[in-house]
Amino acid sequence: MAENKPDIKRELLNKDAPIGVFDSGVGGLTVVREIMRQIPNERIIYFGDTARVPYGSKSRETVTRFSGQIVRFLNTFQVKTIVVACNTASAYALDVLEKESDIPMIGVVKPGARVAAEVTKNGRIGLIATEATVGSRIYPKYIQELKKNVTIYQKACPLFVPLVEEGLLEDPVTDEIARRYLTELIDIDIDTLILGCTHYPLIRSTLRKIMGEGVTLVNPAYETARELKELLAGYDLLCEEPPALGGNRYQFYVSDKAEKFVSFANSIIKYGILSAKSIHIDAY
Amino acid sequence: MAENKPDIKRELLNKDAPIGVFDSGVGGLTVVREIMRQIPNERIIYFGDTARVPYGSKSRETVTRFSGQIVRFLNTFQVKTIVVACNTASAYALDVLEKESDIPMIGVVKPGARVAAEVTKNGRIGLIATEATVGSRIYPKYIQELKKNVTIYQKACPLFVPLVEEGLLEDPVTDEIARRYLTELIDIDIDTLILGCTHYPLIRSTLRKIMGEGVTLVNPAYETARELKELLAGYDLLCEEPPALGGNRYQFYVSDKAEKFVSFANSIIKYGILSAKSIHIDAY
Repeated sequence: MAENKPDIKRELLNKDAPIGVFDSGVGGLTVVREIMRQIPNERIIYFGDTARVPYGSKSRETVTRFSGQIVRFLNTFQVKTIVVACNTASAYALDVLEKESDIPMIGVVKPGARVAAEVTKNGRIGLIATEATVGSRIYPKYIQELKKNVTIYQKACPLFVPLVEEGLLEDPVTDEIARRYLTELIDIDIDTLILGCTHYPLIRSTLRKIMGEGVTLVNPAYETARELKELLAGYDLLCEEPPALGGNRYQFYVSDKAEKFVSFANSIIKYGILSAKSIHIDAY
Repeated sequence: MAENKPDIKRELLNKDAPIGVFDSGVGGLTVVREIMRQIPNERIIYFGDTARVPYGSKSRETVTRFSGQIVRFLNTFQVKTIVVACNTASAYALDVLEKESDIPMIGVVKPGARVAAEVTKNGRIGLIATEATVGSRIYPKYIQELKKNVTIYQKACPLFVPLVEEGLLEDPVTDEIARRYLTELIDIDIDTLILGCTHYPLIRSTLRKIMGEGVTLVNPAYETARELKELLAGYDLLCEEPPALGGNRYQFYVSDKAEKFVSFANSIIKYGILSAKSIHIDAY
């Protein structure tokens, strides 16, 4: 975070370098979309771990090990910062990764927690996320550091990711599963719901329908991009001008199924992604 | 297969050695259950790739690479044979693995194809499986080698694995998803349905209810265990007596979340599995 600048090696940082972004798969593209909107002059290297997706049902040790390999891969591009665009990896691995990193890093959990703490009026906040993120209890920890007298009600929603991956974004089955997951949160009268997994903004309309208009839905992607901009500005690393033509402005890497990724990515980002490259991430 | 004995190095094989079995996760335990029933004197080393599960949505190259690492791991136990207890790995990787192997191997696809070819009367066979297994077209290939004038109707069912993993074995949502997947198979009047993924026998009652009594459900696990017994007998490798007391008769290894695995395993196998060991499979 910009307010606690880590002990980074400034001489390694270069304003023209790209930003590294990673996720377990395609969900992190909802964060990339926001970064492209808010700081459009930046170059981005994205990595999606499609060979080992999902992360949300896996252990801290495994998610941390996988994330470490990805950070090593992104560092081969001399990125100026890394965005952990996955709630599970932010929850389990960011602390460890930051300690080992020479460059500033940012996850999606702190920004999401910050917005939720700001917007709640009745102090009752819901969090929907993967089993891993819920189990880590990191959202309650951060929110309660920011604001007293707040209660966080957590609910793991393990079927949302496969339903989104299957494209059932507006479907009676997704409605039914969402109703089961969310009923207890409605019953306890939350006024704020954090979408604590980067896939969930893609079923926002279903969640909105079930939660009703009275509940604020918090998508950490928007706030993450805003804090990223602040972070870069704080280190004087924001690009003022678009990169030269002909440079690869946005590059996408995956660990499997590059073509399927490209097709999904183009449904999320309107930029026109032509290709993604497949690499062996476990070699890093 | 016993009928085409590969060029194996007989001096490597030892009757008292364990059988290696692997799957992408827990599904292969439905095959282990059958092996335990049909050849109860054998020792088994099981590996479930819980850090990289699922395989069914991943590419041939990735599934083959992961399977190769697992075979190298199982070979450290000097296993006398390896059972690929995963349809996706059998479909994508078995051919390559067999070519590189000094010991006999068996998958679940050929046994499943054989039973389906035997039991169909009207020559209309349905196959439900992962995207990968369907895309490989390996079931139609094997069945049509065994029997002329047979048509195979394939249907990928990507949500079944997450629904089973969530424990929704008998649930209106699983019913609804199954109805969507199966309707076209009912409409074209199949008389045989292959459960082409090792998770699917766990929702057998739902599948039975939707398909009706007139359709034979083929679970390749039973036939795989039967052919495994034949294969071992053919090489004179069947254990006639139970292993000595105190030996580790059944050993379970996973790449992540050993405790969760043990709890799931105990719901499938009545043997009483006390522990599983977690290892880094990508180091093999």
